Amino acid sequence: MKIALDAMGGDFGPPNLVAGAVMALREYPRITKLFLVGDATKIETELKKHGCSDSRVEIVHASQVVAMSDGAVESVRRKKDSSVSRAVDLVKHGKADAIVSAGHTGAAVAATAIKLRMLPGVERPGIASLVPTETNVFVLIDAGANVDARPMHLVQYGIMGTVYSRHVLGYKNPTVGLMSIGDEDVKGTGLTKEVFRVLRESSLNFRGNIEGHDLFEDPVEVVLCDGFVGNVVLKTCEAIAHAIFTWLKHELKKNPKRLVGASLAKGASLLGVNGICIIAHGASTPLAIKNALRVAAESIEQQVNPHIVEEIRRYNETTAPLEHAIR
Amino acid sequence: MKIALDAMGGDFGPPNLVAGAVMALREYPRITKLFLVGDATKIETELKKHGCSDSRVEIVHASQVVAMSDGAVESVRRKKDSSVSRAVDLVKHGKADAIVSAGHTGAAVAATAIKLRMLPGVERPGIASLVPTETNVFVLIDAGANVDARPMHLVQYGIMGTVYSRHVLGYKNPTVGLMSIGDEDVKGTGLTKEVFRVLRESSLNFRGNIEGHDLFEDPVEVVLCDGFVGNVVLKTCEAIAHAIFTWLKHELKKNPKRLVGASLAKGASLLGVNGICIIAHGASTPLAIKNALRVAAESIEQQVNPHIVEEIRRYNETTAPLEHAIR
Repeated sequence: MKIALDAMGGDFGPPNLVAGAVMALREYPRITKLFLVGDATKIETELKKHGCSDSRVEIVHASQVVAMSDGAVESVRRKKDSSVSRAVDLVKHGKADAIVSAGHTGAAVAATAIKLRMLPGVERPGIASLVPTETNVFVLIDAGANVDARPMHLVQYGIMGTVYSRHVLGYKNPTVGLMSIGDEDVKGTGLTKEVFRVLRESSLNFRGNIEGHDLFEDPVEVVLCDGFVGNVVLKTCEAIAHAIFTWLKHELKKNPKRLVGASLAKGASLLGVNGICIIAHGASTPLAIKNALRVAAESIEQQVNPHIVEEIRRYNETTAPLEHAIR
Repeated sequence: MKIALDAMGGDFGPPNLVAGAVMALREYPRITKLFLVGDATKIETELKKHGCSDSRVEIVHASQVVAMSDGAVESVRRKKDSSVSRAVDLVKHGKADAIVSAGHTGAAVAATAIKLRMLPGVERPGIASLVPTETNVFVLIDAGANVDARPMHLVQYGIMGTVYSRHVLGYKNPTVGLMSIGDEDVKGTGLTKEVFRVLRESSLNFRGNIEGHDLFEDPVEVVLCDGFVGNVVLKTCEAIAHAIFTWLKHELKKNPKRLVGASLAKGASLLGVNGICIIAHGASTPLAIKNALRVAAESIEQQVNPHIVEEIRRYNETTAPLEHAIR
């Protein structure tokens, strides 16, 4: 399988990204081609540091980098030769099977959605992030692709998250919870109340509103929220876990940080687009980049998209009038 | 000082609430009167269990309880004899100086805002929750009073949170951060971008957008977010901290849970209303209720409201045209 890595993104740029790529190449023989997209000189320098002359590597030069201060959609239009856009182009032209980016999340989402387009019937992409608990692994969607979500977007996240949980994690009938500020259906924003009403009537295994404690005690398998809330919640969880473990580290014999921190570090899947895009954390270590490349490889094998298309089609066919009411 | 405790609210009702009240009476002689508002028979039974015949206690019977499934504003209109409404009435009629409730947050907010009204110039109340970090204590506002916030509400939370940090926590020039999904001003929702624009021009010590890691590494003193995000973030932090400590407890000699869990358990202040209202956690233990009563007593002494009125007036006078544009 062939993967295109945006080698310029992230807080640390080429050094961490190329280091992770080298680790992935050593560990995963099923990667038959790894495109490193970005400043060719910088990428070559990093490859040399690692003494890497793996024939599966192909450097694709891109002269631009999306800055964190760039607008997401604007970055696709104005920086046509950016590393993330060129990486997506490789998938668009059939040269690669998946993209991995640790750069500007909005730019990766926009480039993927604009160049590869959405899956049929899907309105907006959503980032699916896996969070391990003591007893299960849940999918949190959306972790930051879509910050101005409408009810129909969250309903579709419910469908896509269910498909993902079923086909990737193996849960037969995943339970779905809607992140809100109380268990009762009267609690929440206009957005969550509308989504609650629609999901209660749907064929999803909907458990209703959930709160923080429901994430870790008797947790659901799919957690729905808009991209702003999901991103803030995940980053805050990560920060508080980091703060606790930093504070505790002298008291602990082993470091269990990975249990909690792993969720974001491993790379999250952008669902809903007509392709495979893995969003890695901006502060990714080489190990995290290696893991994101593994997630990309697994995603290529798992082929979740046809199932999403089928479930969205089925939902839209059976509930078309409702859908129009809340779109 | 005189405090009115809603003795029916919370997940555990009178047993925990009365137990906390008895603890507070023993510990805080400055409480000269404690109204226990709710089902008189149940309250008397609990008082007897503790052998409490403190002359500072006065039971005020209320025949109704706001259920978690009740709407917030509706509960004030339809359940006129609810424990929380009667507790607020005691403040309204000058018999008590502050309310403490561990019940339906929305009902406590609505009863306080409707019966005591807002402070002059303030548009919406916001719950200010104190969160301790390794190096400081920050005010998170809003923790759940207002889930459909407009830009002006968050700007006013910035002013109220600054006043609170200065007068209650002693920070001379508190830094203010806006919870968002990236440090850059182009990141966020329509709401956060507008608030960013206004705060940048304001006299507040505005540091810009912040993310999860900014809460605990070099943290700001005032964290702004809408009530939905604030409530979800705080409850999730609490849950993840609980999950980590449960998981770690056999490895630790001492239990540092209070460091993180304390923020919500201590009771949060409803700012912006013309009175003092402390929102306690629904799952409050007797110790937590005792602490909420202490926070109420401290709030009566601190008299933050005149400072809020003054700062809001000053802001509104100097920026009236801007204010109208975003209200």
